[in-house]
Amino acid sequence: MDTVKKQVFSLDSYRMECGETIPITVGFETYGELNEKKNNAVLVCHFFSATSHAAGKYSHDDADPGWWDALIGPGKAIDTDRYFVLCTDNLCNIQAKNPNVVTTGPRTVNPQTGERYGTSFPAFTYRDMAGIQRELIRSLGIEKLLAVAGPSAGGMQALNWAVHYPDMMDACVVVISGAQTPVLTSLAYLQAAIDAIILDPKWKDGTYDEGEEPEAGLHLALQLMNLAAYQYGWYESSFPRDAKRDVISPSYQKNPEFAEAFKEAVSKRMQPYDASHYVYTARAVMMHDIARGFDSLEEALGRIQARVLMIPCVSDLLFPPQYSKQAVDIINRKGGRASYYEIDSPNGHMAGVVDAHLFAEPLASFLRGKDI
Amino acid sequence: MDTVKKQVFSLDSYRMECGETIPITVGFETYGELNEKKNNAVLVCHFFSATSHAAGKYSHDDADPGWWDALIGPGKAIDTDRYFVLCTDNLCNIQAKNPNVVTTGPRTVNPQTGERYGTSFPAFTYRDMAGIQRELIRSLGIEKLLAVAGPSAGGMQALNWAVHYPDMMDACVVVISGAQTPVLTSLAYLQAAIDAIILDPKWKDGTYDEGEEPEAGLHLALQLMNLAAYQYGWYESSFPRDAKRDVISPSYQKNPEFAEAFKEAVSKRMQPYDASHYVYTARAVMMHDIARGFDSLEEALGRIQARVLMIPCVSDLLFPPQYSKQAVDIINRKGGRASYYEIDSPNGHMAGVVDAHLFAEPLASFLRGKDI
Repeated sequence: MDTVKKQVFSLDSYRMECGETIPITVGFETYGELNEKKNNAVLVCHFFSATSHAAGKYSHDDADPGWWDALIGPGKAIDTDRYFVLCTDNLCNIQAKNPNVVTTGPRTVNPQTGERYGTSFPAFTYRDMAGIQRELIRSLGIEKLLAVAGPSAGGMQALNWAVHYPDMMDACVVVISGAQTPVLTSLAYLQAAIDAIILDPKWKDGTYDEGEEPEAGLHLALQLMNLAAYQYGWYESSFPRDAKRDVISPSYQKNPEFAEAFKEAVSKRMQPYDASHYVYTARAVMMHDIARGFDSLEEALGRIQARVLMIPCVSDLLFPPQYSKQAVDIINRKGGRASYYEIDSPNGHMAGVVDAHLFAEPLASFLRGKDI
Repeated sequence: MDTVKKQVFSLDSYRMECGETIPITVGFETYGELNEKKNNAVLVCHFFSATSHAAGKYSHDDADPGWWDALIGPGKAIDTDRYFVLCTDNLCNIQAKNPNVVTTGPRTVNPQTGERYGTSFPAFTYRDMAGIQRELIRSLGIEKLLAVAGPSAGGMQALNWAVHYPDMMDACVVVISGAQTPVLTSLAYLQAAIDAIILDPKWKDGTYDEGEEPEAGLHLALQLMNLAAYQYGWYESSFPRDAKRDVISPSYQKNPEFAEAFKEAVSKRMQPYDASHYVYTARAVMMHDIARGFDSLEEALGRIQARVLMIPCVSDLLFPPQYSKQAVDIINRKGGRASYYEIDSPNGHMAGVVDAHLFAEPLASFLRGKDI
């Protein structure tokens, strides 16, 4: 595959679900070629901590390719010899300091005031993301997508597409995600992460300056998210307890070595993240409820015309499989066509990203029109 | 059963695992009568947020009895017509402000300085608790216990008894607990809770005054612990999402109704809790590793002489059943006698307390000498 270039899409004004209207700029990447009929496009949507860099490399020297590179490329499940694949950066992308991310959020300068939005930035939702992506798709002359697909928050966007723009897509692929963020997940890892950042005295209602950022709060928020994303066994092997080294010190402040090792691993990943973007993204994930605006979950899911494939992971602590099963049942009961493919991995939620080989084949078949 | 009275046990000095020596006072309760041979005593140990009030009522007007009242009483599994049952308050009991709790911890006045210990209080462990309970038992003239039993942190104490005082007990009952606190549990709900409290600017290294306490940090810590203690379904029914009411407000600060309802429920329980005691107890639970001081987990568990019964719950997110299974296998491989009885409840970890009826019969049989 050739190297990948970031592209930029702007809207002078976009009316968000919360009622506010703002100008929007987001980055996007494409892989493969749009055919003449413009009917071979697949939209891939990114998860919480990811970016629009879903596949390929920016330069041949890059250590790693994009996050779903195992699925996207020539001859792969999302075959770039056949499909034209797009992925956008989300609003309030948490990697706000990553030079390859183009996003609009609290760190953006509000053109009306000349100052950063900070927490005056309006709350965004994954329904907003679907709407913004729709504008991008139409600006490229595409009337209908072959598919919208994504893991976790990416799956939330795919479902918002399927419910709100039912006639604009043939297929919807929802990996390690669901119709509503479970209450436990919302409270334990998202509301708690927001609370942790706000608790940091450096938060200052989001008005912090560069270099004076609420790092401790953000670090705790990242810890919480990271911990839910994998599974028990992954932690035992990544940060093993060591009874020999973890003698009891009189000081309450002495963290055991395995906790220090984990904190260090989180610290190493922190550099591109921004606390205010994290708060907004956590809020968007916890507010994900496809029933919002409808009389019931049944009514919302009943609008879907696309074939749907839901792929949960058996060890997922954030979106346990029962929620995917429930959504599949509702869609089929309402006359839709939904399939369920459970993957068995010890990697918990992250299996939807790191174990993509486990569902590459059923995904490829599904995209070619076969129900799973 | 008659009403219950709190009793008090003191040691002028106790040398803790961390090496510090301090005077200790803890409360305890007893149910049933010690027989003449003093060989019918069962020690019950309390879990994280509980107290020595394991059974009965202080007054006939009390709304609720003690936390394992379903198991402890005349004719019940831990039959007070046969057994003399004891339960102590732990060091650093988190209900430090509960008038029925007698504990020694950071809020205690250090007799050497005339001021509260604060965070100069030495870190305690569940091995310390077993040692202090042993002194209490011996002060009552009891040479050997029929059994030591407890859920969660109570099970940690029971295992410390079995490993460190192997000839002082016949049976060990470990409910929703294990030989080592899992790394995921330690990091997500214990280290994160400690970090949350320390992040609160009112923490002041534990030197806060009454009325100036780090309530926000403690609240977040309680949320985290509460969230791990139950299961997905419990939260869906206790704090249901409501797409109709949770419209999207422009403000990032607007928590959805289900999050507010949950926070309010946590607030209602906060009154007796102290932040510094919470930090110390969280540290003790995360440092629970029965292998500490031995060459291996096998060596530690190989010391056990008591018959062991481990009772995990299938939906437990803090101590998933695989950890109990592993400990039982090791004990049996080392020539011990360990049984495994898994309970099936949707209540997660708390099933070990709220669903005691699910294991009352096997527990009763086990205490009468029958392997399960």
